[in-house]
Amino acid sequence: MRLTEQQLNLFEDDGFVFFPNCFAEDEVALLRIEADVILNTERQEVWREKSGAPRTAFAAHTFNEAFRLLAHHPRLVEPLRQLFGEDVYVHQYKINAKAAFEGDVWQWHQDYGTWARDDGMPAPRAMNIAVFLDEVMPINGPLMLIPKSHKHGTLAAGHDKSTTSYPLWTLDQATVTRLAAEGGIVAPTGKPGSVLMFHGNLVHASPPNITPYPRKIVYLTLCAVSNHITKFNRPDWIAHRDFTPIAPVDDDALLVYAQSHRVAAE
Amino acid sequence: MRLTEQQLNLFEDDGFVFFPNCFAEDEVALLRIEADVILNTERQEVWREKSGAPRTAFAAHTFNEAFRLLAHHPRLVEPLRQLFGEDVYVHQYKINAKAAFEGDVWQWHQDYGTWARDDGMPAPRAMNIAVFLDEVMPINGPLMLIPKSHKHGTLAAGHDKSTTSYPLWTLDQATVTRLAAEGGIVAPTGKPGSVLMFHGNLVHASPPNITPYPRKIVYLTLCAVSNHITKFNRPDWIAHRDFTPIAPVDDDALLVYAQSHRVAAE
Repeated sequence: MRLTEQQLNLFEDDGFVFFPNCFAEDEVALLRIEADVILNTERQEVWREKSGAPRTAFAAHTFNEAFRLLAHHPRLVEPLRQLFGEDVYVHQYKINAKAAFEGDVWQWHQDYGTWARDDGMPAPRAMNIAVFLDEVMPINGPLMLIPKSHKHGTLAAGHDKSTTSYPLWTLDQATVTRLAAEGGIVAPTGKPGSVLMFHGNLVHASPPNITPYPRKIVYLTLCAVSNHITKFNRPDWIAHRDFTPIAPVDDDALLVYAQSHRVAAE
Repeated sequence: MRLTEQQLNLFEDDGFVFFPNCFAEDEVALLRIEADVILNTERQEVWREKSGAPRTAFAAHTFNEAFRLLAHHPRLVEPLRQLFGEDVYVHQYKINAKAAFEGDVWQWHQDYGTWARDDGMPAPRAMNIAVFLDEVMPINGPLMLIPKSHKHGTLAAGHDKSTTSYPLWTLDQATVTRLAAEGGIVAPTGKPGSVLMFHGNLVHASPPNITPYPRKIVYLTLCAVSNHITKFNRPDWIAHRDFTPIAPVDDDALLVYAQSHRVAAE
């Protein structure tokens, strides 16, 4: 999958590109089931909300075949190779649960702010690719983005270690207000299988989920190989240290696996 | 303003009726300004979030002329007289701030659950009328309703005194999940001046507001005079004890006041 001229311009102007229904339900259904199993497992890679509900699961591509295939999927990897003009590796891999009733806030932040400060990533030549596993609705804690905010570089941030169970470099209210006055706020919504790519410096957040509808999103963070991290403060299952270029699988690899897996399970 | 046959049927079926742009911007602009002044005042009627931001201001119709006119406005009072077939009085009057960045959750609840348990209101012959003072958007903590949930009577509830600064009889997750599976969840959005009337037993909630956009709503609770409360556990500026029937003002009373007030202020 290559980005069109129009998509490249959108990304340049607004800092994100949204692809509704990038993956078919046949490809996503298995991931959704496996994500629930992983999120309910007790292991160091699974972090919980203060309430005890699952918040995020790291590194599922290292211990789950379906998520390994997703991390190597050409629909995610190739646009990033195109954008960065070189090979990419997996810097981080998260399944964010935003559980029904319990999913807590992610405060306003830039991802590259964390990658730079905590991991010593030289430049914002890394990007998040969000894959919706559940339907993302306006009411179940959607991701909110501030278009054009990526043009402001890496903004001053404070290290919030108390609001949620996950420490995050967050922006202050005056900064968010100023950026939203310029770019507005959008909350892309869509069916499972929709994909959102956004710049490492794009300011984003998500509100708590108070509905009965879970809102799982996989965040695959791919980094240009030449831009690999230089500090190893965080565990290697949070900020990976294997800088091997991703060799994409076939475009139908996930579909084939999902079909065979489902048949096997029946 | 009288409800049409169609609106009466909608209310019967779904438990709410929404009136976009019921008040003009000329009528609402003054209320918005005065609400901000009231919410930033230190007085017993103004309750704050745990963060210190304003959460709700009670009884503004007893000390502010613009809000007094709103409480007597025929566009709000007459539909309720029509529905209840008798005169109504003001049981409660709130300005809910849902402040930018700070506005906290209102958990899933039924209003009549509180009026019955705390105030000894005999029957659900009272109703909330929400008047939007700011634009209510999907992203700034809109009111969420579960259509048809009013048909289940008064549901079992627990008294939540810890989640927010305001004690509330809230429903458990299993109940909300069951009701939402039947009726779905809707979040009416619209411009300032839009009005939402909903049944005292309609289950509703609102998520925190993490955006820079405030979302002030006035909740006028009108009760049939013959159905007045019988227990006086709460202060009279929260659950009023003056059961005098409301005599509506003229339809243009708020507009005339707003215009004269604005002229005077310039």
